[in-house]
Formats: sequence, structure tokens, C-alpha cells
Amino acid sequence: MDLVRAGPRVVSTTIRIPDGSPFGPHNLPYGVFSVAAGAPRIGVRLGDTVIDLSVLLDDDGADRVFSAASLNPFMAQGPARWAEVRERITALVAADLPDEALHPVRDVTLHLPVEVADYVDFYASQHHASNLGRLFRPDAEPLLPNWKHLPVAYHGRAGTVVVSGTGIVRPSGQRKAPDEAVPTFGPSQRLDIEAELGFLVGVGSELGERIDVDAFAEHVFGAVLVNDWSARDIQAWEYVPLGPNLGKSFATSISPWVVPLAALEAARVPLPEQDPQPLDYLRGGQDRGLDVELVVEWNGEEVTRPPYREMYWSPAQMLAHMTVGGASARTGDLFASGTVSGPERRQRGAFIELTWGGKEPVTVKGEERTFLRDGDVVTISAAAPGPGGTRIGFGEVTGTILPAG
Amino acid sequence: MDLVRAGPRVVSTTIRIPDGSPFGPHNLPYGVFSVAAGAPRIGVRLGDTVIDLSVLLDDDGADRVFSAASLNPFMAQGPARWAEVRERITALVAADLPDEALHPVRDVTLHLPVEVADYVDFYASQHHASNLGRLFRPDAEPLLPNWKHLPVAYHGRAGTVVVSGTGIVRPSGQRKAPDEAVPTFGPSQRLDIEAELGFLVGVGSELGERIDVDAFAEHVFGAVLVNDWSARDIQAWEYVPLGPNLGKSFATSISPWVVPLAALEAARVPLPEQDPQPLDYLRGGQDRGLDVELVVEWNGEEVTRPPYREMYWSPAQMLAHMTVGGASARTGDLFASGTVSGPERRQRGAFIELTWGGKEPVTVKGEERTFLRDGDVVTISAAAPGPGGTRIGFGEVTGTILPAG
Repeated sequence: MDLVRAGPRVVSTTIRIPDGSPFGPHNLPYGVFSVAAGAPRIGVRLGDTVIDLSVLLDDDGADRVFSAASLNPFMAQGPARWAEVRERITALVAADLPDEALHPVRDVTLHLPVEVADYVDFYASQHHASNLGRLFRPDAEPLLPNWKHLPVAYHGRAGTVVVSGTGIVRPSGQRKAPDEAVPTFGPSQRLDIEAELGFLVGVGSELGERIDVDAFAEHVFGAVLVNDWSARDIQAWEYVPLGPNLGKSFATSISPWVVPLAALEAARVPLPEQDPQPLDYLRGGQDRGLDVELVVEWNGEEVTRPPYREMYWSPAQMLAHMTVGGASARTGDLFASGTVSGPERRQRGAFIELTWGGKEPVTVKGEERTFLRDGDVVTISAAAPGPGGTRIGFGEVTGTILPAG
Repeated sequence: MDLVRAGPRVVSTTIRIPDGSPFGPHNLPYGVFSVAAGAPRIGVRLGDTVIDLSVLLDDDGADRVFSAASLNPFMAQGPARWAEVRERITALVAADLPDEALHPVRDVTLHLPVEVADYVDFYASQHHASNLGRLFRPDAEPLLPNWKHLPVAYHGRAGTVVVSGTGIVRPSGQRKAPDEAVPTFGPSQRLDIEAELGFLVGVGSELGERIDVDAFAEHVFGAVLVNDWSARDIQAWEYVPLGPNLGKSFATSISPWVVPLAALEAARVPLPEQDPQPLDYLRGGQDRGLDVELVVEWNGEEVTRPPYREMYWSPAQMLAHMTVGGASARTGDLFASGTVSGPERRQRGAFIELTWGGKEPVTVKGEERTFLRDGDVVTISAAAPGPGGTRIGFGEVTGTILPAG
């Protein structure tokens, strides 16, 4: 950034935004950051600069939400406040900003941006659900009878949602191959990823009430990238009849930057056709598809580009379904899409699909690879169209596999 | 209670404990209560009296944990502190107590005793799992191949765990009978209960670490009664392949009194035989069965008495399994046993089993009944043996069914 010393205070006259940056003035994602030994607080990213909102905005009497160590207090304030703050930030960055409020992103530590309340993981990609059905239940119809009528989901472990960069210890657990008589215990041999988008609830709902499919933007604050690490061997043995548990509970990584819903308006697309038409309470959410393209890198090499626009169920339908029985939502609830997979092989968002259960390896850095080895690094990034040909970046969610404990 | 005015301060010379009270001096369960417009705080129950620990114990400098609105800060202090506080309470109640610290239980409002972190529900009764298998999958083996090798469980919705007495709004959702072509939407027609015990984690664990089966008492603070309300028609349609979601996410009720683990020492019994022997990480928890008898009343009439001593998996095995893959535990984690069912019909802890899918009604107040109607009240209570022939009461968890919204 260009700095001009103006009297006793250092001010920045501009924040220089690199050409083509996906963190331009139409994005403005929020995160929780700290510098050196300072306390975590709320920042917004512009280019490669983190703007400290606790310095700029916490003088307005609105509960000092930007001095908090999570986005929850700000998210709870609701859409009118979110819009007002976004306008203020847009005005602020057009003018001089005090240097004390600006930090190069490379100098900050990024933290888990939210206190996760409940974590629900959907299964909203028809391509993914069909592929997994073929792999897990080879003798049956790949798509189960309920799949096109409701967005299938399960509750995951909120306490093990971690921020990008957290090391992922390979889980141990019970596995039993079909040709083995009894299960054995040991480190997972089929450790996998799931590339997903996650949505964060800002404004919750009361017990016994439902959130209408059209009320999505009144409740949802923004979106993050999710890597729902999955131990396929543990999952395959445990998951009947109550669903996945230890195969997925050991860690779920999310990106540190929360892209506000307002930044994704230009990325809205209609869903691919839903046939049969869903029940009334799910209609109206069909214009809430999102044209977000994910990119998965394995040890630095791109291996797949899952297209979010191919998802069968929209996030508005997910939220409406989640609450239609009267379950309340809370500030900090995270609901994720499930693996994003497109129709092409190089659009599959999990390695079990990409390598067809490990039988069709992919080449990574010159080696044939199927599942994750200790030391492997997986990085998921994503971007969406913004206004006027700009790009809205999600940043990345990354993790390194550590040996079993 | 007998009161003697002694100078300027009203003191109670004794707390009169009704004969045969299951809340005698060997129980001392903790809860969160308030009186009139006062703030919620921590109390302990003796007989029909609630003793305000914020008055008696929050002068000791230990973070004023008894003035909190949940047990979480106290639970986080760990087993040495739990033992010390139990000893202090035992000494205090033998002496005079200031009247300002004593409230008749009928005069207080009881609140949700904990902030629930993650909620995991197990499936640890062989009788229940076999019965549900026969009812949900009539053409297959009732017990799935993994069931005797690991305590099957799923994550429930922590945000809809409510305290006893909270009204239960009948959930609406998708249902499809096998002979219907497409699902319909409407209020659940097969609303049910699940009578369970729940266990509360006081001291958590780090990500990537496991809690050994022998370390149960270092982590678990106490137990509560759980009613995991279940909409069987919604559950039956949605639950493949990722497990129950809306069929159970609308509400889970827990009792307001948390019985400390120390009060359940006399109730410890060995598990029924586990055959096959479980894997190493689950052994050693086989002496952690509990002789707790539950009683379910439907509109005031006793309909079943589920025996916890019949459970196949112990809570120590549940906690060891939950963390063996490196998932961390947190203060406030609630893990429940799943429905407690014994071998006899009148020991089944869910109405779907008791009435065999609605085909064998039970008589309640002179009427043939299967599933729950609006206005029905279900109350689960329980007691266990205490030292010297005493009884350790859990109090009750109750709920009234309200019409669909």
C-alpha cells in the first residue's frame, strides 16, 4: 500500500488492489484475524489487505461487535445492519484509512470465523449422490427413492469444525472389508476429501417455526468453503442404519473468509431442472443456484474443478427443509451442500469418485494416487462471477494430513 | 422446612427430607433455577428444597461458577473440584443454612441445565435395535452386521435440546407410506417418544486425542433423563442413507436435574455379556453398566418400565468410541444412550415398539392408544439404588404435545 505521512498519524491514501484480484471492492469478505500477540477481532479483506473493523467501526455504539473473536455477534444483527456496514465499508475504503487499521494479509493469523452452533451437511449434488450410491451399494439403484423429493442431510460434529490450515490427524477406527469376517482397528486407509460450500445462519428462528424458502436472505449471512474430510473405510462399516459418524466427525475444515450473500448476487443462477417438482415448501428456492467454481489442488496440482451451478438443491431449499418440522435455527449454524460434483470426471469433488473407489488412480506430481497419504496437502479454492466482469473469490481452505496419533 | 429466627438473619436449622425421598443426601443433583424475576443460577436439590449455591459457594474465588446460567463453567472445572464441592455441600447441609439460600422446589423455575455443545445419540439397547430393525426393515436381519462391534450413533441437533416442561409442537414433514407413489406433506401421524439416559461431558479433550474407556469419570460430570421425541413417519421416509434428521431434530427434552456420577456409584453393574468381545479400545468399559429403572407415564398412567441395566453398550464405551478417531469432546457435550428397552413388552422405551408399529395398541385411561395425540402428556422418571438401601432419583422429563403450527 502507498503510505503518506500526514502529521502525527500514518494514513494510507489507497489500498492497492492487484489486477484481477478476486478480493475487489465488490467482494469484501469478513474474517477473524489477529496480529502478533493481539486479540482476535473482525476484519474485512480488500485485495491483499485486511482492514481492521474494530478500529474503524466499533465507535458507533452497536455493541462493539467487531471487537469480538467471532462473527456471531455481527451476524446476529441481521440483514439491515449487514447492508449498512457493507455500505460504510465501501465508503471508507474510497477515502483515507488510518494505517493502524490496515494489515497485509500475509502478516495476520486467521482464525475460525464463527462459533459453530449446529453443523448440518446436505447431499445436494445428484452426480455425487449417484456416484456414491454406485460405489457403496453396487447392487441397488444408485439414487434412493427419497433423494429427488427432499434434500437429504445429517448433522455433523460442530465441535470439530476447524479453520483452514489446521493439521488433519489421520483418524483410526474400525474397518471391515466385505471379504473379512470381523472388523479390525487401525488408521484409515481410505482418507478422502469432500469439496463443498457452506452457509452461515446469522438470524435464527424460534422453536416450532419454519423459515420460508423465500426468507433465505433474511437469515443467511454468507458462505464459506468446506472440506468435509471423510474416512471412507470407517464410514462404509459404521453408516447403517443411522448415517455417518466417526468417518466424518474427526475434522471439517472451513475457509477463514466469509463471503457475504450480497457479494454473490451476480452469481445467482436457476437450478438445473427439478423433476419431479418438489413439494410446495421447497418451491421458490429454485432461483437460488450459485455459479461458483471450485478448484481442488492435491499437493499443488489441480485435480478437479467441481461446478456448484450443477447442484440439484439450492441453499434456500436446504434451509427451508431443515426448519420445516419446527427445528429452530441459531446464529452460527453452518449448513453445507455436501460434495459438489459435476457430470464430468474432472468435476468430481471427492477422491472416492474421482478414482472410482480407488480403482482408477489419478496422476499427481507424476505418481498414481487414490486416497490421501500422510504429508499430503489438499487446497480447495473457489470464485464466482461478480458485477461487471469482476470475480468474487472465496480464498481457500487447506489442510495437511498428519500421521495417526 | 423448619425456620428459627436467630437474630437479624433467618436460618433454617434443618431441611426436612420427606421419608423415602429419592433426593436424599446421597444424591445432590445440580440444576439451573430462578425465582420470580431473579437471574438463573446454580442450585442443588435436597428433598423438596433447592439450595442456592451462588449464595453459599460463590465466595470462594473459583470464578463464581454457581452464579452462571448454565452448569458448563462448573462442569469444566473437573473431577477434583466436583468432589470438593460435593463434600462442601454435604457438610453445609448438616449445619444451619441461611434462609435466603433455600427455596421450596415448587416455587422455582427450572431451566435447561447446560449449554449443549454437540449432541450424539447412541443406539445401545439390543432389544430396541432389534425391534426397530424388524419394524423398519421387515425383510432383513433385524440387527445389522456392525451392531455388536461398535456402539452405533449419530449426531442430533444440539440447538433443539429443551428442558422438561417445554411444549412439543407436532412436527410437519414429508411422509410416504410404502403403498403411496409420492410423498405428502403434513403433520406427523406417528409421533413417538424415546426414553433414554443422557451423559454430560464436563472436561473435554483435544482434537486428535482419544478418551480412554477407563477415563470415563475424568470427563463425565453426570446424567440426565432424555426424551428423544421421534416422528416415525418422517423418519422412515428420510433416513436412508444418511440417518435420521427431521424425524428427530424438532425437539429433544432433558430433565432439569443433573445427577452427578458420584451419586451413581452404588448403581454400577456389569454389562450383560458382550459377545463377540469388542475390540481393545472398547474393553474395560464393561463394568460401567447402570441399574437405573425408568418409568414412562402416558397421561398419568404408567405404560412401561425400561431397565437401563439391560443396555448392551456402556456409557464409558460410548465416550471411548465417540473420540477414538480423534474427534475432540467439549464441555457441554451431551451423549445419550438411545432408547432403553428391555426384553419384555412392558420394558420397551418407545411407543413404536410397545405397540408394534401401531398394530398392538395399549390401553391408556381406558382408551386404545398407539402414537401421540395433541394434548397428550408424557413423563419419564427414573431412580437407581443409592448407598445403604437409599434411592437416587433423576426427577422427571415431561412434555405436552401441541398442535402442528
